[in-house]
Amino acid sequence: MKQIVLIGAGNVATHLARAIDQSYPRGTLSHIYSRRHSSALELGQQLSYCPVCVDNLQALPTSADLYLFCTPDDSLEALWHTMPATHGGLWAHTAGSVPLDKMMAWHSKCGVLYPLQTLSKARSIDPRELPLYIEGSDEEVAARLESFARSLSGCVYRADSQQRGHLHLAAVLACNFTNHLLALSEDYLKRHDLDPKALYPLVRETMAKAELYNPRSMQTGPAIRGDEETMNRHLELIQEDLLLSQIYRLLSESIRRHSR
Amino acid sequence: MKQIVLIGAGNVATHLARAIDQSYPRGTLSHIYSRRHSSALELGQQLSYCPVCVDNLQALPTSADLYLFCTPDDSLEALWHTMPATHGGLWAHTAGSVPLDKMMAWHSKCGVLYPLQTLSKARSIDPRELPLYIEGSDEEVAARLESFARSLSGCVYRADSQQRGHLHLAAVLACNFTNHLLALSEDYLKRHDLDPKALYPLVRETMAKAELYNPRSMQTGPAIRGDEETMNRHLELIQEDLLLSQIYRLLSESIRRHSR
Repeated sequence: MKQIVLIGAGNVATHLARAIDQSYPRGTLSHIYSRRHSSALELGQQLSYCPVCVDNLQALPTSADLYLFCTPDDSLEALWHTMPATHGGLWAHTAGSVPLDKMMAWHSKCGVLYPLQTLSKARSIDPRELPLYIEGSDEEVAARLESFARSLSGCVYRADSQQRGHLHLAAVLACNFTNHLLALSEDYLKRHDLDPKALYPLVRETMAKAELYNPRSMQTGPAIRGDEETMNRHLELIQEDLLLSQIYRLLSESIRRHSR
Repeated sequence: MKQIVLIGAGNVATHLARAIDQSYPRGTLSHIYSRRHSSALELGQQLSYCPVCVDNLQALPTSADLYLFCTPDDSLEALWHTMPATHGGLWAHTAGSVPLDKMMAWHSKCGVLYPLQTLSKARSIDPRELPLYIEGSDEEVAARLESFARSLSGCVYRADSQQRGHLHLAAVLACNFTNHLLALSEDYLKRHDLDPKALYPLVRETMAKAELYNPRSMQTGPAIRGDEETMNRHLELIQEDLLLSQIYRLLSESIRRHSR
């Protein structure tokens, strides 16, 4: 890739821009587009060489090698609608939930580079450990995107739109929902004047064991033991919180059924 | 503590025996009781000095300083019923869900030393980082148990039976339930021929962010964005799994309500 254009200046764009800046010569990332010019500039100034920052898609060059769309999933169609025609270059989006065929309606040489990670501007991560899932409108595009991805990260995989959809759903279970349970647990401890972070040594060890072993075989707690007495005592403690009681019952029931 | 007797040879007993062995002179842990003599012996032989191993409570000395009950929560009452009368020594149990007053019916000088951690024989952890929650039948007992706990771990706290109950419930939410979600996520990935461990870089980062910040403010995913299209697509993917669909709907609803 000799010239790369970045569309977006949010969390994903920030991490990919830093990774490109580390792996490619100064100036390879030539332009950053953001709806808000100041956001593009703020990102550009963090890099070793500040790219041209624009808030107008028509101001982008039309012959770059790669146009990388790093904006929210539901903003992509409108952007593609407004993009100028480009010549020769690839378009790639980074969204977990957007199938490739939606993009192919707008540009024939296109693909996906999906970072399966939770990215925040304020938190730096090692780009070599960023899992990237690649898909292309044809094998040549896929191979070019894969080679680009490997220049950024040591964890590059292929995944078609259907597989990416499965990964995205599993990520909701394993990350969005677990994070919410941690929030519920912290809220509960706070309500009872206990340290909301008291459980993190246990959380860390639980996650480490799940990763090393099979989480199903590591399941502990009253539900897997069929300890009705403890479960009833817990349900009494949260009886005034209907939604939390439902969550407790449903997840306990699921643990019980999966233990068979 | 000059003489300590350990009742039990399971996961908790193993970790506490190793910690005592590191912090006290050889022989301080004088006896290990287990229903199965071989289990007691197996634990004893891992220590620097093998204690006397017995499978009969009547064979225990009656004048030790501390009797530490590390057996399953629902086995404790029957054990206390069978224990010989002891003179002067403290009794302490290690169960999260058993209130202290249940024990006081059997022995007046008693307390709790609750390790808030998931412990497996096969996995060693640093005892200095093991969170221990202390309760005593009176302040003198609590102070003696606290001082004992501090000789083992750098993370010692006081918690009465009610607080321990709250911690135990929160631990079910933050650990038992999150572990089950990881199991569901791995099962789902396996069913679709994807690597069940694919999400762990994301899981690790999600947990690290939850611990550093407020998990409520770190919530991501379709439910917090109100992205109905993605949630409907996910529900279609799991429509044949009724229980998983219910979990998806309920946790998404809970995330949505807590975002207000």
